[in-house]
Amino acid sequence: MNKFLPAEELGLRVSRISGMLREKGLDAVLISTNANIYYVTGYVFSGYVYITAEGDYVFFVRRPVGLEHEKAVYIRKPEQIAELLEKSGKKLPEKIAFELDRIPYSAALRLSAAFSQKTLLNSSDILSKARAVKTAYEIEKLKKSGIHHCMSYYRISGVFHEGMTDRELQIELERLLRLDGCLGQFRIAGESMELFMGNVLAGDNADYPCPYDFAMGGEGLDESLPVGCNGSIIRPGNSVMIDMNGNFTGYMTDMTRTFYVQYADIKAKAAHKLSIEIHKALASFIKPGVEAKSAYEYAKKMVDDAGFSDYFMGHRQKAGFIGHGVGIEVNELPVIAPRSKDIFEENNVIAIEPKFVIPGTGAVGIENTYVVGKDGLECITNFPEELAEL
Amino acid sequence: MNKFLPAEELGLRVSRISGMLREKGLDAVLISTNANIYYVTGYVFSGYVYITAEGDYVFFVRRPVGLEHEKAVYIRKPEQIAELLEKSGKKLPEKIAFELDRIPYSAALRLSAAFSQKTLLNSSDILSKARAVKTAYEIEKLKKSGIHHCMSYYRISGVFHEGMTDRELQIELERLLRLDGCLGQFRIAGESMELFMGNVLAGDNADYPCPYDFAMGGEGLDESLPVGCNGSIIRPGNSVMIDMNGNFTGYMTDMTRTFYVQYADIKAKAAHKLSIEIHKALASFIKPGVEAKSAYEYAKKMVDDAGFSDYFMGHRQKAGFIGHGVGIEVNELPVIAPRSKDIFEENNVIAIEPKFVIPGTGAVGIENTYVVGKDGLECITNFPEELAEL
Repeated sequence: MNKFLPAEELGLRVSRISGMLREKGLDAVLISTNANIYYVTGYVFSGYVYITAEGDYVFFVRRPVGLEHEKAVYIRKPEQIAELLEKSGKKLPEKIAFELDRIPYSAALRLSAAFSQKTLLNSSDILSKARAVKTAYEIEKLKKSGIHHCMSYYRISGVFHEGMTDRELQIELERLLRLDGCLGQFRIAGESMELFMGNVLAGDNADYPCPYDFAMGGEGLDESLPVGCNGSIIRPGNSVMIDMNGNFTGYMTDMTRTFYVQYADIKAKAAHKLSIEIHKALASFIKPGVEAKSAYEYAKKMVDDAGFSDYFMGHRQKAGFIGHGVGIEVNELPVIAPRSKDIFEENNVIAIEPKFVIPGTGAVGIENTYVVGKDGLECITNFPEELAEL
Repeated sequence: MNKFLPAEELGLRVSRISGMLREKGLDAVLISTNANIYYVTGYVFSGYVYITAEGDYVFFVRRPVGLEHEKAVYIRKPEQIAELLEKSGKKLPEKIAFELDRIPYSAALRLSAAFSQKTLLNSSDILSKARAVKTAYEIEKLKKSGIHHCMSYYRISGVFHEGMTDRELQIELERLLRLDGCLGQFRIAGESMELFMGNVLAGDNADYPCPYDFAMGGEGLDESLPVGCNGSIIRPGNSVMIDMNGNFTGYMTDMTRTFYVQYADIKAKAAHKLSIEIHKALASFIKPGVEAKSAYEYAKKMVDDAGFSDYFMGHRQKAGFIGHGVGIEVNELPVIAPRSKDIFEENNVIAIEPKFVIPGTGAVGIENTYVVGKDGLECITNFPEELAEL
């Protein structure tokens, strides 16, 4: 079975990484995490991807059996890699980098010993930066996710009924998304980050502080996973923020829409309108070469001028960003935050989520996923943005 | 808000860990991963749990705001911890251990620098061993998960209809489980392990090799998550193995049942019967003090004697274990495998899953979760075990 990327696309990704290795004066990189193995090869396998600065590469596969690719070599343990490279007449790298921001300390030591490295070199930055600029192939996958994501959202109103809890609505949305092809799994970077299929936040639960570094919180259903819906009945006057996972293709779009039940508070309506205006403003402000932090400042100034600072990105607890890259994981580069050092590049794919929490009503605002184009942003989650009745 | 464990239970878990620190000659441990923070405190927060060999402890909390506990101290970054300990008149530990098998290399270096440690010491083993022996409080949570897990399984036949795909059946089961209170999230240890809500494996897809270290495989729906159902129509003569996630309480039970459509192959029936017999035999064989590897050998001998070795734990690709601890994560200690060094202890909670893949039919066999008692195993997933028509 050959599950890997088409040769041309695979070559493109490998050459991007090998170019970055040369820039950094590194000889090779050994990749061992699922997200990065999937990025390079288009398939998740248990093992390692080895890429040299010259652009040579090998897939060292532990599982599954039966993979067929001219570059695939089976191993049982990483200690065999150096030996196999030598046997095939390849020079061992003097400077090989590992994903030190991702792999456990013990795993990093084991790999460095297998390559007789005295100093450990970090490839995490290279891979994050390579992944931040999407290829045309990846953008197609993202656009496809965006289309399915929107198709599912069109059915939201159809599953809501009076007296429903936030949890019950979330479960019906999970089912809709899954039936439309959502893969469920929500890949997320960071040792303490985890999330199930997204969040439905209704009423004041949106203001419940959560431990995770998300834009919004929620009490959750259990102390073991304290985020999102908490089982409250959705009541007239509540806003219902829907931020469900758009992973239909291995690449996920991030999209939030907000609804209300029966009537909406005036302040909540104004805040929602402001969120849409911020999107419009950023869609022409953000271009290749613009600093990510200036996009944050631009949005923040609009919020301050409108007098909504107290409610922006949470009320009791505030999130420190208004947007982030998306792709194989939901939290990629660039980060749109006050101290971000990222600069927008063409073909970044970013989610922007200026949101507000209005006490007594709940969360309002929208989130879209955009491709950064030469002249501004192209939205790939095209679904009505207005605050709508559920 | 106080989301933490009752004082007595918290004290029990802290004293278990501090006792193990003393045994190993360590002064303290700093815990930073969600699963272990949840184990010690009963709540997931962003931050660190500090425990000394003397049994003193502090929760250093980064997020969420508003946590109330006499031992909770707010910080922004780990570098503040040593300073805060000194300020409160506590002696800094000379030998502090971190979760080196779990936290990234970069994070481990940062923590060791924050405590001016020259040698990095590993606490992963201590925490895994502490967690392997469940408290009465934890066993209650597991039993509650088991009851809900079974309640959901009773509704399996009700959602199946002719012409359904494995994916469609899985989605309806996900919904049933979620409506019954399943939290969805499937916590799993290991840098390359991930899984959505469990697996429905129908027909020959059960024999499709997967990269993950699970008992069974499956092609999956996408190269980005190559495990489980693949969208095939469930056909007469197929076996349908259902192994869905039982996380109803933060503690998860693991339970597999197998069904058939219209008719079942004779060999598949016999293999399924053998799986049930292995369970019965192990339920009295496994006791505190018994080696885990001997339980594997016992089962393997029954399989060899019955002539089913070719199909045991997979056909094209075989799993190397027949059981594992369960709790906060689905893959805890002890491991029931040929080279396991684990020895069963009272109040281990283990899943046993002798399964077979019969080409042309699919996977058969069952999995139950058991508490290891003084005189044998107590099953906490009490649901009919026979191969039943769907």
